[in-house]
Amino acid sequence: MTDKSIVWEDGVLRLLDQRQLPGAVEYLGMHSAEEVATAIRTMVVRGAPAIGAAAAYGLAVEAKRLLEAGVAPSIHARMEEAAEQLRASRPTAVNLEWAVNRVMGQLSTLESDDAGTLFEAARKEAEAIAEEDVCINRSIGMNALQLLPEKITFIHHCNTGSLATVDYGTALGIIRAAHEAGREVFVYVDETRPRLQGARLTAWELTQLGIPYQVIVDSASGFVMARHQVDAVVVGCDRVAANGDTANKIGTYNLALAAAAHEVPFYVAAPTSTIDFSLHSGEVIPIEERSPAEVTSFGGVNVTVASADAYNPAFDVTPAALISGIITEFGVARPPYDRSLQELMKQTQLAQHA
Amino acid sequence: MTDKSIVWEDGVLRLLDQRQLPGAVEYLGMHSAEEVATAIRTMVVRGAPAIGAAAAYGLAVEAKRLLEAGVAPSIHARMEEAAEQLRASRPTAVNLEWAVNRVMGQLSTLESDDAGTLFEAARKEAEAIAEEDVCINRSIGMNALQLLPEKITFIHHCNTGSLATVDYGTALGIIRAAHEAGREVFVYVDETRPRLQGARLTAWELTQLGIPYQVIVDSASGFVMARHQVDAVVVGCDRVAANGDTANKIGTYNLALAAAAHEVPFYVAAPTSTIDFSLHSGEVIPIEERSPAEVTSFGGVNVTVASADAYNPAFDVTPAALISGIITEFGVARPPYDRSLQELMKQTQLAQHA
Repeated sequence: MTDKSIVWEDGVLRLLDQRQLPGAVEYLGMHSAEEVATAIRTMVVRGAPAIGAAAAYGLAVEAKRLLEAGVAPSIHARMEEAAEQLRASRPTAVNLEWAVNRVMGQLSTLESDDAGTLFEAARKEAEAIAEEDVCINRSIGMNALQLLPEKITFIHHCNTGSLATVDYGTALGIIRAAHEAGREVFVYVDETRPRLQGARLTAWELTQLGIPYQVIVDSASGFVMARHQVDAVVVGCDRVAANGDTANKIGTYNLALAAAAHEVPFYVAAPTSTIDFSLHSGEVIPIEERSPAEVTSFGGVNVTVASADAYNPAFDVTPAALISGIITEFGVARPPYDRSLQELMKQTQLAQHA
Repeated sequence: MTDKSIVWEDGVLRLLDQRQLPGAVEYLGMHSAEEVATAIRTMVVRGAPAIGAAAAYGLAVEAKRLLEAGVAPSIHARMEEAAEQLRASRPTAVNLEWAVNRVMGQLSTLESDDAGTLFEAARKEAEAIAEEDVCINRSIGMNALQLLPEKITFIHHCNTGSLATVDYGTALGIIRAAHEAGREVFVYVDETRPRLQGARLTAWELTQLGIPYQVIVDSASGFVMARHQVDAVVVGCDRVAANGDTANKIGTYNLALAAAAHEVPFYVAAPTSTIDFSLHSGEVIPIEERSPAEVTSFGGVNVTVASADAYNPAFDVTPAALISGIITEFGVARPPYDRSLQELMKQTQLAQHA
């Protein structure tokens, strides 16, 4: 349907350069974990599930590099260095760490220090993560349908579609599932400053899917809810704390405040891999601060005075109290989240042991 | 200090082309009411007080044009046509209408239909409006000081400075007054999509004034309030209804919701000419919808898919319940505004008859 964010073919990893969309569709070949870490940091690939899968493949790429370079011994130690580099590439999305740890967990079971053996194991686990991601997203979409009316107008923030995942999407997957189920769907697309993932990527995906939409500036959401029918807000997430507080792209919190003021349901689409039970609340989620140039320039052209400084937090935290439901692959968690998320996690563990 | 938005010199009106700031400082000469109406519509000049003054001068320019072209008779009727054109140039700011009506009121007292006589009367009234505007803004700044601590961090939306007025500014005038009074001032500058009046114009003015600031994306205001000290939000207004509901640049409402969530005082700087007692509430304030291209393109370059549509309301309405105080040249109105604004208006009338 839409171009894939991550392509693994004949042992080669290629990432769609999302910085150039929708102007150009170009894939960049990745030849080491370092290159993948750089691609994540510079947002060639972005979206929590997509960077998780890309990092997992990054470990396979690194093992292959070591194999082809004939490097030995200490492959395990070198892979741990690569894993650390990938984990550190962006701080807020927890499933980056989750995916890297999952691959490294597999490698740690291997007694062999042979690069070929480690490559095969890393490749296999990365492929499993990628395949599961698509199923998880489809399940999130299906689980959301019970919450939605027949005719539905959404507000959507950032990009959470095929491009932000391995395929199908999380919050955009919900919109897509509603569309595929024959519901009458319309989407107000937050442009999502500073990097315009909404205007550039979500609009592109919705166009390809044939779902009608209008782009709005992020700050118009309150006015749109005041003067027009809006039935639900759907967003993705980069990390959900144990109490349901949710870190997501900057602007999500302001959107949640507007939704609460207008009693519009506010739903977070969350693969359970984004739930971080080690953090009791959103206050302790690390928030990435990116370059001021993302705010002060636009398409490479400076838009303010040359000396201007900018403050550019890439994410914000939406308190659990503003969230109507957290939609996972195992069902919908409702407040109070400290209990309902634990319940869902038990199901995850049951599923994994089934 | 900063370049003036409106220059009237030797019978010639020149408007600073604010669309080109901060890249270029260029003035456009105005030779008819039609040219001034176009300049207002295309936002060569913007900001409610500035467009009011520009429109007033536009009537003087028109009378001069009729005089120099030797047009006669029916100067009064032709001036009424020009007035209608100016009033219709933008719908939301009420002091555009107020300023035009004030000049036309003066002309209506003249029995003569001589273009020269009408020109002199229009010129005189436009100059009075322009001079008063500066005094009004300085008074707003002085009246705000009582509300502000010694060390103060503001969030400011859009541009409300010298450029948005004849000089000094309304909400930015408050920031300026605090700075001039020796307070320790810092400003988070909302970039103000889609036209970036904050990043382009407010940052430019603050730089010239030596007031420290950082630009933020509009949707970051909630996160900034959650994680940093913010003492007050100050905004301008395009029209205040009798109950205190306030129309202002799109994004003001979302900012007010964030301020309320964090108990940050939210102040509206309002010359009394922006209060419209004929409207009982903000629901009936006409909201201008501008071209989708302001959202979908930047500097002439499309930022989304070519076929993308956008919804672009230029203003929103902040309900009175979210406003901590309306700061006018006659003092600070506090809730309930239906009473306090009437009180202030009585003072206006007393002042006008003094």
